[in-house]
Amino acid sequence: MKGRHPAEAYDKVFVLRLGHRPLRDKRITTHVALVARAFGANGFVMEVCDDAVISSIKKTIATWGGKMEITCGVDPISYVSSWKSEGGEVIHLTMYGIPVDEIVDVIAASVKRKLIIVGAEKVEPVYYSLADYNVAITNQPHSEVSALAIFLDRLYRGRWDISYEGARLRIVPSARGKKVMRIERGEADK
Amino acid sequence: MKGRHPAEAYDKVFVLRLGHRPLRDKRITTHVALVARAFGANGFVMEVCDDAVISSIKKTIATWGGKMEITCGVDPISYVSSWKSEGGEVIHLTMYGIPVDEIVDVIAASVKRKLIIVGAEKVEPVYYSLADYNVAITNQPHSEVSALAIFLDRLYRGRWDISYEGARLRIVPSARGKKVMRIERGEADK
Repeated sequence: MKGRHPAEAYDKVFVLRLGHRPLRDKRITTHVALVARAFGANGFVMEVCDDAVISSIKKTIATWGGKMEITCGVDPISYVSSWKSEGGEVIHLTMYGIPVDEIVDVIAASVKRKLIIVGAEKVEPVYYSLADYNVAITNQPHSEVSALAIFLDRLYRGRWDISYEGARLRIVPSARGKKVMRIERGEADK
Repeated sequence: MKGRHPAEAYDKVFVLRLGHRPLRDKRITTHVALVARAFGANGFVMEVCDDAVISSIKKTIATWGGKMEITCGVDPISYVSSWKSEGGEVIHLTMYGIPVDEIVDVIAASVKRKLIIVGAEKVEPVYYSLADYNVAITNQPHSEVSALAIFLDRLYRGRWDISYEGARLRIVPSARGKKVMRIERGEADK
């Protein structure tokens, strides 16, 4: 489970969550953030701040390890524009886009920093033009949670060999039941 | 986009959603159901009935086509037991299980009907023993939505070439913006 974090090949692979209605979207946005962490993004940016979401991600990181830069309350259009002007590229996940398997090799081959935009219900048209790639994970409606997981899976060729440094707990995969290893302080980064 | 539905290789690939707290889980359960449809399950079974979730899936099917058997209000332990006694096999998705890439070839090679169990927050220990396979999609916490998508993706080797019969709308993939084709009545099943 050791090795480079897969995002390091691009320096940064960040996820930008557009919109967020705290009452309605709390759990979906939390799941998006957890997917970002588990499938190898190293940053999570929210347009709207929600303490419940952020505390939930931080708690996960404290227990299960890993590093992720967390930011909230950004103006998303400025954020995207700065990302591009600093040499990064922008991938917008949308069911209207180009099928992921047709385009992901091009995206994976470019060494640029990657910002993956994940929208809430309605995404303003401007993002379709700002994005370098509008990418579809199936052209059917499903979920930003699954779309992000499949996109990161394809970007990294299914290699989620992430080293979760600082973890306090680690699962020992098992055919039946739950086996969890508690990691003592000092051993955490081994 | 035509051809057999991928679930047909096994006759049935059903998803069983355990638990469901209507206020808290409405959107997550809806996303689980949409993932089931978009990634090639042909049945969705809920322990707890929730009209909002069911109407949302039915609306999606009416617009975007496809077929999915929808059932709710089942006793999940009896349901799982019947599934097994009728010759089907049961896959429980859990972060404590065996990594999907180690076990999916065995599952894909067996022609048995497949019931995929997707839990809400806490899953009773009995399911770990009832399941033929406890399968982990990463051993990290993320989401039942992404876990189901990745599992179905692996089961079908990334082939989501589902024929969505009866669709009224179909997306034409595009690099920018949204292109949607309206399908006239009578043409729908072509």
